[in-house]
Amino acid sequence: MLVSQILKDKGDLVFTISPGDTVEAVAALLFSRRVGAMIVVDDSGTVAGIVSERDIVRAVASEGAGALGRPISVYMTSQVHFAETGETVDSLLERMTDRRVRHLPVLVTGRLVGIVSIGDLVKHKISEVTAEAEGLRAYIVSG
Amino acid sequence: MLVSQILKDKGDLVFTISPGDTVEAVAALLFSRRVGAMIVVDDSGTVAGIVSERDIVRAVASEGAGALGRPISVYMTSQVHFAETGETVDSLLERMTDRRVRHLPVLVTGRLVGIVSIGDLVKHKISEVTAEAEGLRAYIVSG
Repeated sequence: MLVSQILKDKGDLVFTISPGDTVEAVAALLFSRRVGAMIVVDDSGTVAGIVSERDIVRAVASEGAGALGRPISVYMTSQVHFAETGETVDSLLERMTDRRVRHLPVLVTGRLVGIVSIGDLVKHKISEVTAEAEGLRAYIVSG
Repeated sequence: MLVSQILKDKGDLVFTISPGDTVEAVAALLFSRRVGAMIVVDDSGTVAGIVSERDIVRAVASEGAGALGRPISVYMTSQVHFAETGETVDSLLERMTDRRVRHLPVLVTGRLVGIVSIGDLVKHKISEVTAEAEGLRAYIVSG
C-alpha cells in the first residue's frame, strides 16, 4: 500500500505553525487539535522543522516554566524526515523504527501535502497484512 | 509472536513514578530516560495510572506554568489498558489502534513485568511479517 492511499483515506489536512509561536501556544494547539505533531513553516512557506509531543516534554525538562514563553523554534526538531506519496507503508514503518520518529510529513515536488503517523501506518498495515495472508492461503488451498 | 518474546528481547525494565511527583519532575524523567511513558505506582505498589508525553502536553495546554508544580496524579491517565504476556503482537497493535494509546504495561497475575510501545511492536511485526511472507512464497514456489 502506498502513502497516497493513506492520505486519500485520512485527508490531506496538515496543521502548521510559525517558528515564533510560543511553546505554551503550541502545546495548546497540539492538545486542542488532537494531533501528536505539527509542521513548523516559516514566512516564505518553507518547512523549518517539526514539533511533536516529545519536543514539548524536552522543553519543560530542560528549562521548566521558563521554556513556555520561548519560541518553538528553540525546541523544534529541525532535521525533518520526509515521506513521498509513492512510498510504501512498509518502507515508512522501517524508517520510523530506524529514526525513532512517529510522524512523517509527506511531500510532492517539495510541497507539503499531508502527514502520516505511526498509528495511521499500523492501522493500514493491519488491513493489508490480513488481506495478503488470506490471499496466499486461498492460493495454497486451491493449488 | 507473543508479548513475552518482546520483553525477552527488550528487557523487563519498567520506570515507575509516584502520584505525588510533580509534572516538571516527570517531564525531566521521561526526557532523561528516553521513554515515552512511565507507570504511576502508589505506596501500596498498586498501578494508579500511566503518564505519557501526551499527558505532559495536556497539563501545559490546560494550565500553563501553573501545571508544572502540581502532582502528576492530576494529569495522569487513570484508566490504564494492560497487556498480558500470552497475547500476540497483532492483538496489541489492534488494541493500541482502537484505544489510541502508544504504550501498554504488561501484567502477570496482577504484577507489572514490563511495558511495550507501539514502536516495539512495529519493529517485531516487521520481522515477523517478512519471515512469514518468505515462508509462504517458498512453499508456493516449491509446490
